[in-house]
Amino acid sequence: MAVNLYVPKTVASIAGLRLLVAQAGVKYSNRNDVLVICLQEGSRVAGVFTQNRFCAAPVQICKKHLAQEQPIRALIVNTGNANAGTGELGLQQAFAVCKALANQLDCRIEQILPFSTGVILEPLPADKIISALPRQVEVGWHEAAAAIMTTDTCPKMSTRVVEWGEQQICVTGISKGAGMIHPNMATMLGFIATDAAVSQSVLDALVQELADASFNSITVDGDTSTNDSFILISTGASKVSLIDSTLHPAFSSLRQALIEVAIELAQAIVRDGEGATKFITVKVEAGESVAECRAVAYAIARSPLVKTAFFASDPNLGRILCAIGYAGIGDFSTECVDLYLDDVQVVKEGQRCSGYREEMGLSVMKKSEILVRVVLHRGTAEATVWTCDLSYDYIKTNAEYRS
Amino acid sequence: MAVNLYVPKTVASIAGLRLLVAQAGVKYSNRNDVLVICLQEGSRVAGVFTQNRFCAAPVQICKKHLAQEQPIRALIVNTGNANAGTGELGLQQAFAVCKALANQLDCRIEQILPFSTGVILEPLPADKIISALPRQVEVGWHEAAAAIMTTDTCPKMSTRVVEWGEQQICVTGISKGAGMIHPNMATMLGFIATDAAVSQSVLDALVQELADASFNSITVDGDTSTNDSFILISTGASKVSLIDSTLHPAFSSLRQALIEVAIELAQAIVRDGEGATKFITVKVEAGESVAECRAVAYAIARSPLVKTAFFASDPNLGRILCAIGYAGIGDFSTECVDLYLDDVQVVKEGQRCSGYREEMGLSVMKKSEILVRVVLHRGTAEATVWTCDLSYDYIKTNAEYRS
Repeated sequence: MAVNLYVPKTVASIAGLRLLVAQAGVKYSNRNDVLVICLQEGSRVAGVFTQNRFCAAPVQICKKHLAQEQPIRALIVNTGNANAGTGELGLQQAFAVCKALANQLDCRIEQILPFSTGVILEPLPADKIISALPRQVEVGWHEAAAAIMTTDTCPKMSTRVVEWGEQQICVTGISKGAGMIHPNMATMLGFIATDAAVSQSVLDALVQELADASFNSITVDGDTSTNDSFILISTGASKVSLIDSTLHPAFSSLRQALIEVAIELAQAIVRDGEGATKFITVKVEAGESVAECRAVAYAIARSPLVKTAFFASDPNLGRILCAIGYAGIGDFSTECVDLYLDDVQVVKEGQRCSGYREEMGLSVMKKSEILVRVVLHRGTAEATVWTCDLSYDYIKTNAEYRS
Repeated sequence: MAVNLYVPKTVASIAGLRLLVAQAGVKYSNRNDVLVICLQEGSRVAGVFTQNRFCAAPVQICKKHLAQEQPIRALIVNTGNANAGTGELGLQQAFAVCKALANQLDCRIEQILPFSTGVILEPLPADKIISALPRQVEVGWHEAAAAIMTTDTCPKMSTRVVEWGEQQICVTGISKGAGMIHPNMATMLGFIATDAAVSQSVLDALVQELADASFNSITVDGDTSTNDSFILISTGASKVSLIDSTLHPAFSSLRQALIEVAIELAQAIVRDGEGATKFITVKVEAGESVAECRAVAYAIARSPLVKTAFFASDPNLGRILCAIGYAGIGDFSTECVDLYLDDVQVVKEGQRCSGYREEMGLSVMKKSEILVRVVLHRGTAEATVWTCDLSYDYIKTNAEYRS
């Protein structure tokens, strides 16, 4: 029941990169649950990871391997087990998987990045993954996206092709999020690859900017899962010259394509949110700082009361006002707050707008895509957060997951 | 479907205080929706209120009236409308209700405290309440508690009698919470009265201590509704001498009785939580500070993933570890964390305890009352928070409320 989730039939393939999947039976049987992304020589990789203190063994290893000098040659992702809360044994098991793949690819262990998603606190069956490696088969992006799903209802992909003179730059990405109302609830993984050649410093800056504009706009800081990872890959197979600074003529086109892909992938996670029936954009304008706008947007976006009102199409909009009130912005004046639902002004200067009628709110609440817009009237900053409603099926999915 | 919620058949009456109810038809018909508590001369009142910036009109008036010199003579509570997000008109309407009651009681407007609970952002029908005032009938505590209910499934009361030499001190309280998984979701009201004579300064200190030990242990700071209020009343009708310091020989007995009543009333709100099927105590021990223990306890207690696991009796306990990890305690070492479910040790030193078996967790998860105990091993502070699980009926209640 994903909300208006567009799954592209075809996506641009990324030269310099191979996708392989296997059935390891980590948790599920009769489905692919291991994805390997092999990179050609000269590829570069950058990543951002969960802030959770209980960060999973593969996340710890990824950080270490990205920090060393050897170029990354392959990424390996398993679904069904998060390898988190697994201590020293978990590190050994993730390491064993890296080692087996490194042997197969004839590279060093440090050149492999491991990723896991699934149940926390259970030992990773590394042997199953290792024995599945010889059975890998090469696939396209669709099968790759499907291989990393957990409770996702469909694979998540996005793609852009930038024409650059007579050359092209291709950008394609996949993501998975086990639903999640907001992302403290399950692991998000995102992988975006481009065939453009991008220097490491530009790639490092881009991955952080992309994360902030996309995956971190559906995530409350510090509310991330044990395994959240977002990776940006440059294979360099495109004939466009090396993009080694933001002044490179192709930089802004590449950046724009990457941002669009990242936002589509992040929004896809919300659209496929567990039990989601509505896609809600919360935009907070005219705040003193981006931080306070985000705080207000998140207070609204994570309020179970607000979310159930959306599910019920009930314009019980005082719940939004209440959330603004407890967002922790100590010194703001409630008499300045305006609230709009799409184009309908609900609250003016902190109280119900005189022209507002319940049926106006109701007509917006019935839509499947809704914009909640809050104007604080105390500055020029703004922030946008995406979320979904809270329905019976959220409970069903999470109560029955793992059973 | 409240969880083991004890509703006492009889409670101690409090001399010096009269309870009256009326049917005003604010939102519901054919039920009492207005409660008036009349206090004898010499009574003292203290209160603590929501931190929400959109605090309701009655809360604003309560604070003002408590700050002035005139003794409080009566409290008036309506259910069905919160009178919040109602601006200047809301203040006028709350004021009009106070004025009508003051006229009836022949006292000053400043001697009345108003309270409202219900839907936010709709004008209070003050005229309905005012015209119901002549129809008040005197009742007992049970009917009083019933008159302030919203989506509560039963009235909430608690009582203690302290024998003091040949005298007695009686303490009786009522509360209402429209369910709520944690208290950002609906208004909590709590009123506790004692016939003991207590000085204003002792009363002021007690009301804050009681709130912290009870209602604030089911509430995230800043996450409170627009209307949350907790009031402590001393009528002075008991023959025990004025308790004007903590050194008074009766103070500690009174304090103990008050704390027990406050905790029972706060826990009753959780036990009657919307859709609750389990009552969960989260205790965090051996932290550096109470603040960090509370942060960890709240991260667990408000995680929808943790709460749905409890609903499903699914020992998917990695979700608890994940919540500890994102609680925002930046410098703690995950290798020191122990986790117990009742007496079952699940996590030892940050990973699954070697003796733990899934069936051990399952047997605890099936209970209706569960203790989650986290030991941080970095200090001597501790904190306890009470919560409930997240079930289909939470969605049902909140999706259909107001409809």
